[in-house]
Amino acid sequence: ANNTYIRVSLPAVCFVWQIAMVILFGVFIRYDEESDEKGWHEFKRSHNITSNIENDFYFRYPSFQDVHVMIFVGFGFLMTFLKRYSFGGVGFNFLIAAFGLQWALLMQGWFHSLDPVTGKITIGIESLINADFCCAGSLIAYGALLGKVSPVQLMIVTLFGVTLFAVEEYIILDLLHCRDAGGSMVIHTFGGYYGLAISWVLYRPNLNLSKRLNGSVYHSDLFAMIGALFLWMFWPSFNSAITNHGAGQHRTVINTYLSLAACVLTTFAISSMGQKKGKLDMVHIQNASLAAGVAMGTSAEFMITPYGSIIVGFCCGIISTFGYLYVTPFLEKRLKLQDTCGIHNLHAVPGMLGGFVGAIVAAAATEEVYGKEGLVETFGLSGKFENRSMSTQGAYQAAGTCVAIAFGLVGGVCVGFILRFPLWGDPADDFCFDDEAYWELPEDEETIPPVLEYNNHMINKHQDT
Amino acid sequence: ANNTYIRVSLPAVCFVWQIAMVILFGVFIRYDEESDEKGWHEFKRSHNITSNIENDFYFRYPSFQDVHVMIFVGFGFLMTFLKRYSFGGVGFNFLIAAFGLQWALLMQGWFHSLDPVTGKITIGIESLINADFCCAGSLIAYGALLGKVSPVQLMIVTLFGVTLFAVEEYIILDLLHCRDAGGSMVIHTFGGYYGLAISWVLYRPNLNLSKRLNGSVYHSDLFAMIGALFLWMFWPSFNSAITNHGAGQHRTVINTYLSLAACVLTTFAISSMGQKKGKLDMVHIQNASLAAGVAMGTSAEFMITPYGSIIVGFCCGIISTFGYLYVTPFLEKRLKLQDTCGIHNLHAVPGMLGGFVGAIVAAAATEEVYGKEGLVETFGLSGKFENRSMSTQGAYQAAGTCVAIAFGLVGGVCVGFILRFPLWGDPADDFCFDDEAYWELPEDEETIPPVLEYNNHMINKHQDT
Amino acid sequence: ANNTYIRVSLPAVCFVWQIAMVILFGVFIRYDEESDEKGWHEFKRSHNITSNIENDFYFRYPSFQDVHVMIFVGFGFLMTFLKRYSFGGVGFNFLIAAFGLQWALLMQGWFHSLDPVTGKITIGIESLINADFCCAGSLIAYGALLGKVSPVQLMIVTLFGVTLFAVEEYIILDLLHCRDAGGSMVIHTFGGYYGLAISWVLYRPNLNLSKRLNGSVYHSDLFAMIGALFLWMFWPSFNSAITNHGAGQHRTVINTYLSLAACVLTTFAISSMGQKKGKLDMVHIQNASLAAGVAMGTSAEFMITPYGSIIVGFCCGIISTFGYLYVTPFLEKRLKLQDTCGIHNLHAVPGMLGGFVGAIVAAAATEEVYGKEGLVETFGLSGKFENRSMSTQGAYQAAGTCVAIAFGLVGGVCVGFILRFPLWGDPADDFCFDDEAYWELPEDEETIPPVLEYNNHMINKHQDT
Repeated sequence: ANNTYIRVSLPAVCFVWQIAMVILFGVFIRYDEESDEKGWHEFKRSHNITSNIENDFYFRYPSFQDVHVMIFVGFGFLMTFLKRYSFGGVGFNFLIAAFGLQWALLMQGWFHSLDPVTGKITIGIESLINADFCCAGSLIAYGALLGKVSPVQLMIVTLFGVTLFAVEEYIILDLLHCRDAGGSMVIHTFGGYYGLAISWVLYRPNLNLSKRLNGSVYHSDLFAMIGALFLWMFWPSFNSAITNHGAGQHRTVINTYLSLAACVLTTFAISSMGQKKGKLDMVHIQNASLAAGVAMGTSAEFMITPYGSIIVGFCCGIISTFGYLYVTPFLEKRLKLQDTCGIHNLHAVPGMLGGFVGAIVAAAATEEVYGKEGLVETFGLSGKFENRSMSTQGAYQAAGTCVAIAFGLVGGVCVGFILRFPLWGDPADDFCFDDEAYWELPEDEETIPPVLEYNNHMINKHQDT
Repeated sequence: ANNTYIRVSLPAVCFVWQIAMVILFGVFIRYDEESDEKGWHEFKRSHNITSNIENDFYFRYPSFQDVHVMIFVGFGFLMTFLKRYSFGGVGFNFLIAAFGLQWALLMQGWFHSLDPVTGKITIGIESLINADFCCAGSLIAYGALLGKVSPVQLMIVTLFGVTLFAVEEYIILDLLHCRDAGGSMVIHTFGGYYGLAISWVLYRPNLNLSKRLNGSVYHSDLFAMIGALFLWMFWPSFNSAITNHGAGQHRTVINTYLSLAACVLTTFAISSMGQKKGKLDMVHIQNASLAAGVAMGTSAEFMITPYGSIIVGFCCGIISTFGYLYVTPFLEKRLKLQDTCGIHNLHAVPGMLGGFVGAIVAAAATEEVYGKEGLVETFGLSGKFENRSMSTQGAYQAAGTCVAIAFGLVGGVCVGFILRFPLWGDPADDFCFDDEAYWELPEDEETIPPVLEYNNHMINKHQDT
Repeated sequence: ANNTYIRVSLPAVCFVWQIAMVILFGVFIRYDEESDEKGWHEFKRSHNITSNIENDFYFRYPSFQDVHVMIFVGFGFLMTFLKRYSFGGVGFNFLIAAFGLQWALLMQGWFHSLDPVTGKITIGIESLINADFCCAGSLIAYGALLGKVSPVQLMIVTLFGVTLFAVEEYIILDLLHCRDAGGSMVIHTFGGYYGLAISWVLYRPNLNLSKRLNGSVYHSDLFAMIGALFLWMFWPSFNSAITNHGAGQHRTVINTYLSLAACVLTTFAISSMGQKKGKLDMVHIQNASLAAGVAMGTSAEFMITPYGSIIVGFCCGIISTFGYLYVTPFLEKRLKLQDTCGIHNLHAVPGMLGGFVGAIVAAAATEEVYGKEGLVETFGLSGKFENRSMSTQGAYQAAGTCVAIAFGLVGGVCVGFILRFPLWGDPADDFCFDDEAYWELPEDEETIPPVLEYNNHMINKHQDT
């Protein structure tokens, strides 16, 4: 029986959660001093600022918009590659990101910027970027689940995903005092393992009943390429969006840009080697070429050097493409882990790798290279962290990566079991990867392109003669 | 008879109008002091500016580019959803926007920045943004007419649309001294009613002869989703592009971002409730989720508060989706108003709503919230408007909305009658929504995808055996 | 025999070149003083800079991202118009741009910013923009070769293309001291003639064996329109990305914007006149409307005046569309020059034109218009060029255009002969324009959309009854 009837559950979830957002925003969220009309005039006066261009808005808005494009067009269109699940790929991505970013502003606000006196959270452009980042964790998880879950389940994945994200981020960034501006650990490692763990719990032994739809067609691959390219092009903005003003943002862009470029070449190389006639596989090009951006998330703001960045990219292209060729099939057969988009190879492993690369680069940092004030600024070694040595910092960075993995795995397993309750409207095994389940598709004959009617007409004519 | 022969009329209009642009630009348009080589050096000296970063260019260029993307890719691709009118959707949008922005620079210049001494209009980055905005009014109108008019008619719609826009904008912004940075009134309300009025005059009783083409196919809906997402993502830039430097732009972005996010959830909810199995409709997702951006056009720069923004978005998603479900069919049946893209629900009503929300928020503004100088700056209450009270300002804002509606309706009816002259090459009723009319389509069998030939071949082979 | 087996050659080239990059970057490339952590702190101190916003990053990063989008999505998707070569169009564009930008950083670094003391090249955001520009030359050349060469050949085209580019750029910009911020000469003229010369050497007399695939389908034309629009919208950023801070960037944007708008109208006009029923051709709209951006590459930063820009755009639309209608077919028949994308009309001729327009505008520059310091800044007339008169500058600009043509033609012929060695895996004449050669295509029946199977099923059912 087709149990994908969501006429009650989806609107209920959307309304309840959106009304909750209205109330919670009313209680908690206010403009910060750089976006508040009165506050900004006072801020300028008290900080002796003469020009509006010093508003943080002008440092971060171009990067914010790039990140925004990555979240909605990048992730959204990357997931349109399935021949008959493109609406779900881009549409549900839209839904859960729009919900997630609101919930993220609250969760991150409570943990990071709740004013103890007023009890309010103040938000500005950096909060919006962080909210987008926070959604990314859940969108990554969606990649593993693509085509096998209902939008209601995705809302739950996002609710818990954002919550877990805020907690692990608090532990990693505040308690362990790690640096992770581009989120190798907090976004990609967490999101990757979170999605894999959920998918493992939701294993469907008879998924091959939908096998005919678990693949691309020519034009769906081109739509996915739009998403892939916007992710690839704007990853320098992703990693640099919240790094330090000045040389910090500047260097992060250079490092990410170089690493991504190198990754493309090794991705093409391994993809070609993996097929007996040397033919390239669009899945690799769309995904593995992005792995360098993931892996540079932590270390791009450090002085990793241009060639260091290229080496990271070089390795990521190889590892990620190998993952698509051999590890994903292995996981599915042996570990009963169905990972539709291969987030294991694009997020989980490169993210983990990026966490450890960051640890090494942090441990190797010296005052000679960074300068005294540069070292303090880059690693935030002031206040109670003033005396932390760089090798200690490196160890904490490595520990942060492990925390991200643990949160992803444990959280994912728990959420997976919640999703197994039979009330969320997920599709039957032979109805996966099919937009028919949740979308009114164009044409009466919904799974058939318009040419068919005409063909039938031709067939009839042909046979009459 | 097929009367879509535009080999004479289209080139004639293009050449005449473009030559007029050359002459009028030669007579009137000059660089402003921030883009003129000599002028900028003098400006820096006279204003004691030490850094080039103070040039308005750096405050506005990132937003300008986002607006530019919305005009050409956003509006253009949103109109590719029809199965066989995608070329016309994106192509004619391109044509009329490229013409409209030139004419807008002149019209807006004459009304807003004509130097009485030199008789020249000076332009800078803000003029380009305003020119793009001005085009938007006509592009919105195109949404109602999509598939039913010729490119020559569209050029006329744009010529008059831009002209009317500049006049109503002058009345609303200068005479009534309303604030409307994101154009809820001047752009969306005007553009929406302008298009609806034209479409009403051009009513085609036999349009169902083209019914087979008045719908989408799977991939055309994905192309439209590209347009929808770029509009959705960049709407914060649209609303903030010409607001005040500093906290003004910063706050406008936050408000628009939040409102749009909330709107997505209620759009999904109502869309699902509107179908008996709870299936979602791509038309709603592509359009209604944008209504919040429209409705925040006036008030986003005010201190509407974050939760106020979310409430506006919440309501807009509901109203707009209801509009698509029930109002558009009603308008077509009862009022003889054929609105191809449903601009009534995306622009006219949310725009009007936004105008009134702006009036309320303006009337509620206090010195306590904005600060003394903030209030003056935000509402421009200097010079002869120095003593205007906030409730008066609110009343003027409401009046401005009515002016926009009136200009749209009256102007649209007049232009509609001009378009009924039988010389503009519009398609017959059974030839609407068909690119065949104005485009050389690929393949000999133009309305049939390439697969057919192969199929016929297979059919023959099959029958031979 | 099908000789497109690239399982050895492509990975070999990718690995060898990428490893070379690692080594060369390790030896030569370092952060510049605005991206180096320590360097920036010292730079601020020594230059008395108080705000991080003065970092060049904030002047150029938004433009850089636009240029990046043009290179990867703009060029990439513009080349997806062929019905069965879209993977190759966007995919190989991705590969060669990712390689080219690394090699460009080295080549341009050696010629322009090698520190004679340390022997190092320092890079910052401007270097990244220049690297993207440098790739553009080779991507333009790819346009002429599209569908007829292997990815290995493209890597060679790029290796030599970038090398030649750096040399001619050094001659034109440094030795002749021309101004060419948007690259009419160094990018478009060079890239155009380079590609044409290669294509001429690689002439295939029997290319009509692949004729069935040398054309578009409905949706491939829409994908190409995405590329075209992103190029069109972001061309103001392309031309202004490395012009002078302040009024320089500001004015360049205005000029390019106006010129492109005018170009659209004349393109539509001529396209309609060129067909007997006045129907428009997507090839013209996608390509000729961009010619104005190419032609403004040199002069957009000068005081060409707004109406001057419009006149250039006006002419370019006409010339370029005529080129597509008459010159490309002529070149193919008479000169045995097969130019898949028509780069002759979009890059070679408008680029050359732009070079000469730039020469004229430079020669006409006066202190009255630019101001004394403006003239020096705009044309860089300091140091040993202090006493160069404007007419001399104009003559050098014209000479620079000739240098670009010469480099393109001679370099292209040489590279063409290298590509004729029979070891690069290029496709046979009947296998051109076919992704089948280098890509694993979706579905077993690779050239047939999924609908066929279903159709056959229907046919069988039909015939059984």
